[in-house]
Amino acid sequence: MTTVSPLVAAFRQASYPVGGHGRKNIQVLKEALHEFDDKLESDIYGTGESIEGFQAEMAAYVGKEKAVFFPSGTMAQQIALRIWCDEKGKRKVAYHPLSHLEIHEEDGLKELHQIESLLLGERDRLIRLEEILALNDEIACLLIELPQREIGGVLPPYEELEAISAHCRANGIKLHLDGARLYEVLPYYQKSAAELCALFDSVYISFYKGIGGVAGAILAGDEGFTAKSKVWKRRHGGDLISLYPYYLSASYYFKQREPKMGQYYKEAVELASLYNSCEHVATLPLVPVTNMFHVHISVPKEKLEPILVALYAETGVGLIHYLRESSEGVCSFEVSIGDAFAQIPKELLKRTFERMANMLQ
Amino acid sequence: MTTVSPLVAAFRQASYPVGGHGRKNIQVLKEALHEFDDKLESDIYGTGESIEGFQAEMAAYVGKEKAVFFPSGTMAQQIALRIWCDEKGKRKVAYHPLSHLEIHEEDGLKELHQIESLLLGERDRLIRLEEILALNDEIACLLIELPQREIGGVLPPYEELEAISAHCRANGIKLHLDGARLYEVLPYYQKSAAELCALFDSVYISFYKGIGGVAGAILAGDEGFTAKSKVWKRRHGGDLISLYPYYLSASYYFKQREPKMGQYYKEAVELASLYNSCEHVATLPLVPVTNMFHVHISVPKEKLEPILVALYAETGVGLIHYLRESSEGVCSFEVSIGDAFAQIPKELLKRTFERMANMLQ
Repeated sequence: MTTVSPLVAAFRQASYPVGGHGRKNIQVLKEALHEFDDKLESDIYGTGESIEGFQAEMAAYVGKEKAVFFPSGTMAQQIALRIWCDEKGKRKVAYHPLSHLEIHEEDGLKELHQIESLLLGERDRLIRLEEILALNDEIACLLIELPQREIGGVLPPYEELEAISAHCRANGIKLHLDGARLYEVLPYYQKSAAELCALFDSVYISFYKGIGGVAGAILAGDEGFTAKSKVWKRRHGGDLISLYPYYLSASYYFKQREPKMGQYYKEAVELASLYNSCEHVATLPLVPVTNMFHVHISVPKEKLEPILVALYAETGVGLIHYLRESSEGVCSFEVSIGDAFAQIPKELLKRTFERMANMLQ
Repeated sequence: MTTVSPLVAAFRQASYPVGGHGRKNIQVLKEALHEFDDKLESDIYGTGESIEGFQAEMAAYVGKEKAVFFPSGTMAQQIALRIWCDEKGKRKVAYHPLSHLEIHEEDGLKELHQIESLLLGERDRLIRLEEILALNDEIACLLIELPQREIGGVLPPYEELEAISAHCRANGIKLHLDGARLYEVLPYYQKSAAELCALFDSVYISFYKGIGGVAGAILAGDEGFTAKSKVWKRRHGGDLISLYPYYLSASYYFKQREPKMGQYYKEAVELASLYNSCEHVATLPLVPVTNMFHVHISVPKEKLEPILVALYAETGVGLIHYLRESSEGVCSFEVSIGDAFAQIPKELLKRTFERMANMLQ
């Protein structure tokens, strides 16, 4: 048996987890599969009615000619950048210093594709428009992540995205959207996915983040682009004989939760305001623009952890299951709102934060 | 709706399909998941009790220090060869001209890893021992596929494998086993998986071929090798947040079917003999050494297809759903025995082949 930290143990005991859609257990997949007939045939190496149907739905959703289902975003995005690099005859792309490709993929882009990355801007803020306007066709592709997760899930104004898109088009730079959390940004921008994606040449979206599926991703673009992506998918070992456990659950939870992204966003604003009402606590951003934000608490971990453990035990509300020490004496963590939040009685939640405010004084 | 060929339609109507474990539909996964508690937690990026437990079981089965679960064999094998190439400081490996890596992977090994392949022997036969004994440390790794699927599933004598292993060890060449169908060869060799795998430095096994799982593979070797394989798995985009749909079904069907490989092998011998009793028909090999073999029928496709359609309709036995035209006037196809075969009444099967013999005259 793996031993868990007191904070994880207390979180698991709590009746009301605050973030996410509930426990990541196999019931998530069982529930989704239950909706489909036992006799539904498996996809076979990316072909078959059910996978092609889902890909067509997702292509329509993001307003692109074609969409291809991938087992992971890591695979989908490296491939997107490789295709644009090959098309431009340049092995260089630009993205934020905290892009998933830079910090979570063991340098796959460099090691497998020999693509160099130009890191734009600073680690603690969004890329600035002037930094993008200074780019020329020395790079094949610019990747923009919406929202920029590692700094709390922040977004540039929509007009800035339009200016970025116009600059890239005028300068022969392909523009790729890391839309792992695409659905989550639409309520703030008040745009459809297709309107937003029209600014980009290629788009990746994920199904296990906001949507809460089991795993999997879509890569979308024009027909030539997606045809090439299937060849690379096979090369990467991602063209599995059966991907249905992923796209069936993606389809099921997409239908259920995509329409609730506006609600999750409003709830994130509400929750962030409760955090910010406590001394020593600040959210980033102060007012969320999606269903996610980061929380920074200026209390050392060894002091904060027992406070949270006691708080969960007393109230039954589980705020978070881990603490990162982001700097000397400061803890931080990420919150993503999903279905779980609406289950918490409002009065109990208010009381929980009043108690936390007292305990942190 | 996709339209299907008359042969596929007739095969689907037949009550008794001869090969495989039954239809590849989502019930395959539902049945496996049913055996596990709803609350079983998902693996998270390759960690967690359930994935680690399965990996440990498989490491013990093949007699290696460690085993890592991969979404696909394509990914697992490219990575194995890359690790050995890096260790030897050479970008060259050797394998059969009809290796999966050479004909089914869109040149991933070359395009992603810049590894050159030396093709040993000829397309229509096994690699000969003398061809291997001529190899020196110009190559980093030799890959041996057991059985050699594309030529009907044939095997070298066990003593030859021992000689290959000894030569590689003496000459600084790493030996990798493409054991996609490892279980299927054990009854013929009368060896345990661990005994056979002891001849190799690294081993890949698959769970959707003989085992009939949904997808997925194991790569096994010593601890240093498997640790590196996890880094490459992340680079390839194969380190999914949740792989449980694959390894849980792999585990379930492995327990069920691995002990039946001897039965499938005997049944393949029986079925091949029925085929060979018909004029114009020959199996390759003549006497199978695993649960699989190829069938060659010297009748043109346009004549053979309506004969099979009529045969299935008359007898209810579905022999095969496709015909490949392997040469002028010759059709061929692959047969793999699984659970379906034992369902066919022996008398009916005999009668089916008698009818086919008549129809082919």
